[in-house]
Amino acid sequence: MTKPILILGGGPAGLSAAHALASIGQKSVLVEKEDSLGGAPIHSGYAKLVPSGEWAKDAIGGMVQRVADNPLVQVRTATTVKDFGGEPGHFRAKLSDDTTAEAGAALLCTGFTHFDSVSKPEWGFGTFPDVVTTTQVEQMISSGQGVRCPSDGRKPKRVAILLCVGSRDRQIGREWCSKICCTVSCNMAMEIREELPDCHVYIYYMDIRTFGLYEDLYYWRSQEEFKVKYIKARIAEVTSDGERLIVKGEDTLVKRPITIPFDMVVHAIGMDPNVDNLLLSSIFGVELQKHGHIARANIYSATGATSRPGVFVAGAATGPETIDDSITQGQGAAMAAYAGAQPVKAAAE
Amino acid sequence: MTKPILILGGGPAGLSAAHALASIGQKSVLVEKEDSLGGAPIHSGYAKLVPSGEWAKDAIGGMVQRVADNPLVQVRTATTVKDFGGEPGHFRAKLSDDTTAEAGAALLCTGFTHFDSVSKPEWGFGTFPDVVTTTQVEQMISSGQGVRCPSDGRKPKRVAILLCVGSRDRQIGREWCSKICCTVSCNMAMEIREELPDCHVYIYYMDIRTFGLYEDLYYWRSQEEFKVKYIKARIAEVTSDGERLIVKGEDTLVKRPITIPFDMVVHAIGMDPNVDNLLLSSIFGVELQKHGHIARANIYSATGATSRPGVFVAGAATGPETIDDSITQGQGAAMAAYAGAQPVKAAAE
Repeated sequence: MTKPILILGGGPAGLSAAHALASIGQKSVLVEKEDSLGGAPIHSGYAKLVPSGEWAKDAIGGMVQRVADNPLVQVRTATTVKDFGGEPGHFRAKLSDDTTAEAGAALLCTGFTHFDSVSKPEWGFGTFPDVVTTTQVEQMISSGQGVRCPSDGRKPKRVAILLCVGSRDRQIGREWCSKICCTVSCNMAMEIREELPDCHVYIYYMDIRTFGLYEDLYYWRSQEEFKVKYIKARIAEVTSDGERLIVKGEDTLVKRPITIPFDMVVHAIGMDPNVDNLLLSSIFGVELQKHGHIARANIYSATGATSRPGVFVAGAATGPETIDDSITQGQGAAMAAYAGAQPVKAAAE
Repeated sequence: MTKPILILGGGPAGLSAAHALASIGQKSVLVEKEDSLGGAPIHSGYAKLVPSGEWAKDAIGGMVQRVADNPLVQVRTATTVKDFGGEPGHFRAKLSDDTTAEAGAALLCTGFTHFDSVSKPEWGFGTFPDVVTTTQVEQMISSGQGVRCPSDGRKPKRVAILLCVGSRDRQIGREWCSKICCTVSCNMAMEIREELPDCHVYIYYMDIRTFGLYEDLYYWRSQEEFKVKYIKARIAEVTSDGERLIVKGEDTLVKRPITIPFDMVVHAIGMDPNVDNLLLSSIFGVELQKHGHIARANIYSATGATSRPGVFVAGAATGPETIDDSITQGQGAAMAAYAGAQPVKAAAE
């Protein structure tokens, strides 16, 4: 009776939603613009995930397989939505291959875009090859290559991870905090120390936001068990003395300038709103909030909803989000979409 | 066909779950140990909620009303579960009034217990009447009384909010961060400044964890628009000079001892595991994680599940949690419980 739910985006939130719907017998159409499912954890080659410690290719890969194998989920990769119209229970989406998908409801799981470090040029990315991003280090680890300086392939003896690159930075129009980079960086520092026990790892921070149960698992463990060093600092610039990278800044705890040499500098890049959000807003007729994320309706009365009835949202599409919470939001919004796709029941509630 | 879902706890997560299930035509039995529904936001008298700014009595009150009015939800207040047995699809719970409830699945939305500030005696609670908790200030605001010094009813001219009381504190066995106290305190500081524009409000912090989209809404706005002052400090003790409270500590930014007088000192109290968790663990046969919260199963393969098939969990029962995320988790776990309560479909997936 109920038409399929249209899910846009095959990352953690979308995969979770598709599985949840299938688990109660509801069909969905999962539209993904990339050639394969998995979202950022797969396409960006994440290594071990926070907080489970499982490899992304296993954890998220398992979610992909479960959905790909499910006859109730119609997977449409390398596909986008060009047009979307109708009303709850009776939507119609025109896809990029000019086919049409009927849908009872739509669920936007369109995620985020990684901050591009070239927008913070004074911190050396794009100028010095050994200034890299957290995503690049994830790939070094997940590929099995190991953490190496891109310039010459040597094992770094001193690594600095700079937090808040593209976050909490009004100068470049990113006022928000990206929520998970602190914990991801603590995790990465431990992974580096595990692979390279002789390597010194420093984390430059403003505030350490290992909130909730991440506190002892990441912040304390990284210091006590892995001897990761933390420096509260305001960073001025990353330069080079011709041999090593030089991180210049002010230690805000002792109010003194500090200049420290490193072999590798890692930008803990933030989460921008998805670059497609303006387009998505226009196609799906949903409002964005002030920073450009997809706006959520009232959480108490319409959990998982957007400004448009019958169109729902989950995960990092709504703002910087953890993988775990994205998965939970996908599951929750699937419930809302399932209810919202059935106009009679929804009207009677 | 499907038996009702047994939901334990009528706070934000449980209310969300009961509504979500009803919205797809599924019955539930909502068991609440207190005399009324609403959980901590109602029973502790919260004022305006983060991040919507709505009054708790309206926002959560609306969720209560929606569930209380729904014929698909059987509400059992002043009731607990004494015994629980069976298997997915066919559980049987014995309630405290000696009635029995049949259930297809169970969902634990049993929340947390506020940290008791008397366990941090050197910070003055229980000794000085004008040392209060965030919960007490919430009540002063939500009751309409306004923020007043308990000792003599005067309007405070100087208020200090101390973060991490019962959080991030190994000395008293609380290693975790309570996740939301930073943001709640920023919010409260603005509320105090709004009511008492002549009152100076200081927040003593270790790290300010206004993560994600809370950053500019709370941390920056509180400073720029409301002139709230932030002091990074390690607090030694709260005493009195006979007239005013004295907060003694070390300013960790300038590495100097600071001694500042206040009219009122507010403990931003943390979230302990629910004191009933050992009992719940025993009755429902679910594992606890190391700090005493209810352990979650694998997020990627079994979102919302506990260690026992057919028993699910949502909200602050799993660890310190925001109200918004508790609501979403309640909705998501409701989906998992609904699927899990139908043995045939679940087995076929």
